[in-house]
Formats: sequence, structure tokens, C-alpha cells
Amino acid sequence: MSENRQVIIASLPTGALAASDFEVRAAPMPEPGEGEVLCKTLAITIGAGQRAGLQGSASYAGAPETGRVMGGSAVATVIASNSPDVAVGTLVSAFTGWQEHAAVAAQSVHVLPAGTDPATALGVFGTNGITAYFGLLAVGRPTAGETVVVSAAAGSVGHIVGQIAKIEGCRVVGIAGSADKCRMLTDELGFDAAVDYHDPDFRTAFKDATPDRIGVYFDNTGGPVLESALFRMATGGRIVCCGVVSQYDTSSPGPGPRGVPGLLVNNRVRMQGFLVFDYADRYDEARARMGSWIADGSLQPRTTEFQGIEEAPRAFVELLNGRTVGTTIVNF
Amino acid sequence: MSENRQVIIASLPTGALAASDFEVRAAPMPEPGEGEVLCKTLAITIGAGQRAGLQGSASYAGAPETGRVMGGSAVATVIASNSPDVAVGTLVSAFTGWQEHAAVAAQSVHVLPAGTDPATALGVFGTNGITAYFGLLAVGRPTAGETVVVSAAAGSVGHIVGQIAKIEGCRVVGIAGSADKCRMLTDELGFDAAVDYHDPDFRTAFKDATPDRIGVYFDNTGGPVLESALFRMATGGRIVCCGVVSQYDTSSPGPGPRGVPGLLVNNRVRMQGFLVFDYADRYDEARARMGSWIADGSLQPRTTEFQGIEEAPRAFVELLNGRTVGTTIVNF
Repeated sequence: MSENRQVIIASLPTGALAASDFEVRAAPMPEPGEGEVLCKTLAITIGAGQRAGLQGSASYAGAPETGRVMGGSAVATVIASNSPDVAVGTLVSAFTGWQEHAAVAAQSVHVLPAGTDPATALGVFGTNGITAYFGLLAVGRPTAGETVVVSAAAGSVGHIVGQIAKIEGCRVVGIAGSADKCRMLTDELGFDAAVDYHDPDFRTAFKDATPDRIGVYFDNTGGPVLESALFRMATGGRIVCCGVVSQYDTSSPGPGPRGVPGLLVNNRVRMQGFLVFDYADRYDEARARMGSWIADGSLQPRTTEFQGIEEAPRAFVELLNGRTVGTTIVNF
Repeated sequence: MSENRQVIIASLPTGALAASDFEVRAAPMPEPGEGEVLCKTLAITIGAGQRAGLQGSASYAGAPETGRVMGGSAVATVIASNSPDVAVGTLVSAFTGWQEHAAVAAQSVHVLPAGTDPATALGVFGTNGITAYFGLLAVGRPTAGETVVVSAAAGSVGHIVGQIAKIEGCRVVGIAGSADKCRMLTDELGFDAAVDYHDPDFRTAFKDATPDRIGVYFDNTGGPVLESALFRMATGGRIVCCGVVSQYDTSSPGPGPRGVPGLLVNNRVRMQGFLVFDYADRYDEARARMGSWIADGSLQPRTTEFQGIEEAPRAFVELLNGRTVGTTIVNF
């Protein structure tokens, strides 16, 4: 165990991301410094937003660089510690990046209860689930009976958003990219309706699915789907701007949606961007409430899991091409 | 006085509005029905948003129609009354449309104190001023020290917005369409800076004028100016969507602004449309506070006045082409 394996950014994608934009390479085992712990990665999660991180200044995560380990969140076991605060053997979530071992500041890790399922910690209790929780409840603020629409509805954030909206008593409509995903949303996760945006009759189907127009539109996609939703907003509606997945995997983002700002004025619509980190002091609240919903069966988190560090690049490509469901996890 | 004169919508404009899209015609003097009053118009106001009303379903004001009297707000004297609530001789504001006489429901008029200046009632104390007040204070919610940017800053709403923002202790930057207007904003109305969007160096000048980025952007224009502002918003900034004057005087609206929704997410920006009517129960508050600011000299409303009903179409065209300042008034 004197060697580490890492996924390196080999080239910055100029169009759609390819697995060949990454390389798996061997590297020396990292040595934890003063106040650091050595983490052995058990699993990582991959989110579509990380594609934005490869676009340079377009992202809040800073400019990317080739030759560096791909960034990302993991669940890991501490196998060496230079900190009195974190003992060897502790299970943690940590920003290790895509590598088997990482030395990170003990202060930066989040200790998990022993026995926590990595996929749960990285999915519903990780950034994805917490983003869904605060984006819907704190930003969108739906009331019972309102129609909530979510795009990328089968994705890591979307499938949680829709289920929380159902728990809140809303009519829930998902927008997803295949008939199979739509079936999963309605038949397995309790969505009232789901519409495939690849369907040539999408506009008609979307209109039919939102007879009372839209109280809250939770937008993970931007682009044409956002534009369609803008034309269906109810008076006083809210658009939660969470992500722009339609614009990530390209070097030539499209124009902005028509209807901005005219339709916002006519229908008194609030459109609000947010980042989950703004709610960091309330994460425990989110985990506690979602935990109770999981316990009573009203919230069913989903994951798509890949096996082995060398699968991480392919998992990312699959995710960006809409071929995963729920949170994308790579078990190391 | 047995004849009335009216401005009729002669044709729905297909490109830029022309005065010839209207006709002044004679009509029989209206007879007030039960519960109605007969108003003699003293002055009307024209707002850029009324151009949207000629675009059909694009507007909240309903679909337009040729052959009808052009709609609009007026200050008028009641010259006949079939209502015990409104006596002959009362000064009122009323939705008479562009005509010398109109029979309107007594319940729909707003009684004004005798001696009120029509231009003040239609401008700062009318829809324009009240829109500025609530759009800035209730929707934008600036705090002292923040930078407030307003577009169409020399216009009916914009010049009030900027002055209220100064009163609130903000740094105020106006965007306007000529060097003369920019000079008026800084030299006469106390704006900290003003930028001419026709200036070929607009982007640089705008950046230089907003060194701390933008806390509140009050948008009267949409289009490219909105797009420029989106790229200058501070974290947690608010965009008040009040009007879309860049898209009114055309049959081919442009695409939406780039940066929606990506920049809203990255900078946690709230973008909110509103209509002043949502604040109808607080109009008195707005008039009282703005009245005190006018009295102490901190708020200076401006108007551009035209004389005679037959000038109304030309006044509208001048307004849409950026050749008026403050509230546009036509005295009958």
C-alpha cells in the first residue's frame, strides 16, 4: 500500500466531455502533515455541476487546470492521523478528490457515525439532498396545493425535490430525458406527472401536465426547458435556479431564455439563484427531517453506482448524457 | 361643448410606433349613466409600458384593438355627476383614455385635493412614482452603502428610483441614452455616476462606474442593458424587473439575456418581477413619504410636457425614442 491511484484532468474538454479527458495514474502515497489526516476513499459522488468546474471562470468553484487530481467529495476512512481530534478508523466525509488516498486538514472533514452507508452520506445526506431540501423549502417556498415542477427530475437533486414537494402536499410534475425515467418518477416515486423533454409533443404534454400553471419551478437545467417553464408560471410563481446542466457539457452556451424579463414582470415571478453552502448552519435540520421521511417511507433516495476508481471518468460521461438516475456514486 | 375629441388606435404598429398609428376624431359628447361621472380631461400621462399594450397578448393590460380610444390615465374635472359620492367640480384622477371627455364609474375615480398640479398627480404621485417607490424599497430592498443601478434612468420611473436610492444612502449609477441625460442625472439630480448606453465604450464605463459591483439593479429596459448588469451583480444582489422598454417598440423581440440562469446561481441573485398594483393598499404611504422628500428638496420630480390632445401621438413617439425626460405629460 505504498502507492496511490488518482484520476487526473488530462485535457480540458472543448465540447462534450469524454472519458479520455481524464487519466488514471499512480502517485506516491501522500504523507499527512501537521493537523492532517490520511483518508482512504471508500466512495465518491459525481454531480453534473462539476462539469461547470471544467469550464474555467464560468463556475463558482474556480478555474480548472490540467495535470491536477479531479476534485470531488468522498466518504473515507481515516487510516493515519496527525490530529488529536480525528482518530484512526473514523468514518468521514471529505473533499479528497478522485483518488484512493488523500491527506486533508482534520478540520475540513465531517465525522460520520460508524456504519453509515457511503451512498446515503454522499446522496440524500450530502450536497445533493441538502441542495434539494433548501432550494425547494427555503428558496421556492411551495404551499400545499401548488404545482411544483422540477427539471432533471430523475437526477441527484431533482428526484429528492419532487418527493419533498409531494410530502409538502403539492402537485408534482417532473421533467426528465427519457420515457423510462418518467415512468420511474410516476410509478415508483409518486410524482403526479412526468414529461419527457425529448418528446416531440413536449410543449403540449407539459401544458397538459400543468393545468393550474406552476407555483414553483425548480430549475436544474436552464436553456429551453427553463424557457418552457417561464411561459407556464402562475402569478406570483417562484423559479429556483439551482443548476444549468443544459449549458455545462459544451463550449458554446446558448442564448438566454426568451421571456426574461417580460414574463417575470407580467406574472410577478421571482427567480432566485442559490448555493447550498449559504445554508451550512442548517444542514443538521435538513438531515434530521429527511432522515425521518426516509424512516417512514415517504422519501426514497436513488443512486446509480459504479465500481472502481477507473470507472469514475465513464460514470461522469454517463451522468452528463442522462444515463444515470439519482445520485451517481463510484465505489472504490 | 356638444362634441368630444378622442385619440383612436388607427392601426396596430408592426415595427416602431408612428404618430400615424393614431387618429384624432370627433365623437358625440358621452352621457354619464347611473353611478357615473362625466370627466373633462385636464392632462394625461403616457408611459413606455403602454407600447406593450399595443402588442396584444404580451401585456398584462389585455389585447389591443383598432378603432378604440387609446387607454390612459388622466387628471380631470368632474363636470356632471350621477353619483352622490362625487360632486361636480371635483378634481380626480381617472382612467379616461386619450379623450377630452369620458363617462366613467364614480367608484373608479380617485379624488384629488383641489388645486393639485396635474403633472404632480400623474407623475411622482401617480403610477410612475409609486412604481419607483415600491419597486426599489419593497422589491429591491437596498441597504445604505450598496450600489444601486437603474436603467432608463432619466425616464418617468428611473429618475425617481435613483433619487430615492440616494436618500437611502446608496451609491447610485444611472444608465441612460444620451450624454445630455447623463449630465442631468449627475449634475442636477445627484446621481453618483451615469453611463450612456450608446457610448461605444459603454461596457468599460459601466464597469468603472460600479467598482463594488451592483447590490440592486432596477431594470426598466431588459435586453442588452440587463445582460450587462447581470455580469456586474454582487453576491446576493437583487434585480428588480419593472419594464422591458427595449422590447416594446418592435415586433421581433430579441433573445433573452445570457447569464440567465447561470449567473443567478453563481452569485445567488434574486430577480423579481412586480406590478405596482400589488401594492395598492400602500399607495398613501408612498405619496406621504415622497411628499416629504419633495418638501425638503431631496426629491425633484421632472416632467416633459406637451400641449393639446392632438400632440398625444407625437408625445408617445418621442417618449419611445428616448427624447423625453421624467414623466411625459400631455396637457389638454
